[in-house]
Amino acid sequence: MAQRMTYRAEPFEHVVMADGVVVVAVDAEGRVALVRQNLPLHGEAVSVPGGMIEPGESPLEAARRELGEETGVVAEALSPLGVFAPMPRSTQRLHVFEASGLTVGDPQLTQEEVEQAMVVEWWPVEKAVEAVWDGLVQLSGSALALLAYSARRPSLTA
Amino acid sequence: MAQRMTYRAEPFEHVVMADGVVVVAVDAEGRVALVRQNLPLHGEAVSVPGGMIEPGESPLEAARRELGEETGVVAEALSPLGVFAPMPRSTQRLHVFEASGLTVGDPQLTQEEVEQAMVVEWWPVEKAVEAVWDGLVQLSGSALALLAYSARRPSLTA
Repeated sequence: MAQRMTYRAEPFEHVVMADGVVVVAVDAEGRVALVRQNLPLHGEAVSVPGGMIEPGESPLEAARRELGEETGVVAEALSPLGVFAPMPRSTQRLHVFEASGLTVGDPQLTQEEVEQAMVVEWWPVEKAVEAVWDGLVQLSGSALALLAYSARRPSLTA
Repeated sequence: MAQRMTYRAEPFEHVVMADGVVVVAVDAEGRVALVRQNLPLHGEAVSVPGGMIEPGESPLEAARRELGEETGVVAEALSPLGVFAPMPRSTQRLHVFEASGLTVGDPQLTQEEVEQAMVVEWWPVEKAVEAVWDGLVQLSGSALALLAYSARRPSLTA
């Protein structure tokens, strides 16, 4: 215990960041909403919708907003799949949601998202999981979200 | 295409970070090496061994070194399970490995790891996956690594 108390009394180099959300939104046909875009640092990728939580928003509100902005989807239900820390030295936590009961409308992309050539695609979940192995799901949060969904919903992805 | 070229000509706020590694090391009895520690920002957690790649190291060399330092394990084989970007605005990439053919020795912890009360535990893989759902696997890289291993090696974790 002394070690832990000593440790906590010393400075721990870290960054303070807002939390983020990712959303696995699967329609009645078992297809998941993905955004294909050209990531400036990492190249071509497919990701699940997501982004940063804005000041005053709950994780659930942010998930609903990002899903709507990036894919045009309105979901009847959003359920938590887990909360994770992307980096031990960052305060950021990533909230993973599953969305169901989907109604599809038009995305409302930001200028930056338009510039990243972001487009919405609907893939069978099992194809999205294959893309994790193939390297096209570049972002670890998206990969984690897709594998978590697949593990919790094996009947849809077998 | 014009949009992409315009985009690339503009500054994209990002951080430059070294790459990291995580290792799913499973012994002949199907037990995975986990490190339990008290994360300063996120509290009690179990994680797979891992850390930053040092200058001049390959991802494979870093994985072998971190596995040895944190758990005392020497592996006959290390195989890649994937490479992911933890954050779109960071250059960092996380290299996920599976280790097999394990020989267990003594960990060589750094002072910081000792202060974080890091201890090695060996868990059945399916219990480690349950800890992903329970919130004890706090780090997203560890959660991703465990779910990826479990998805690729279903016979060991069913």
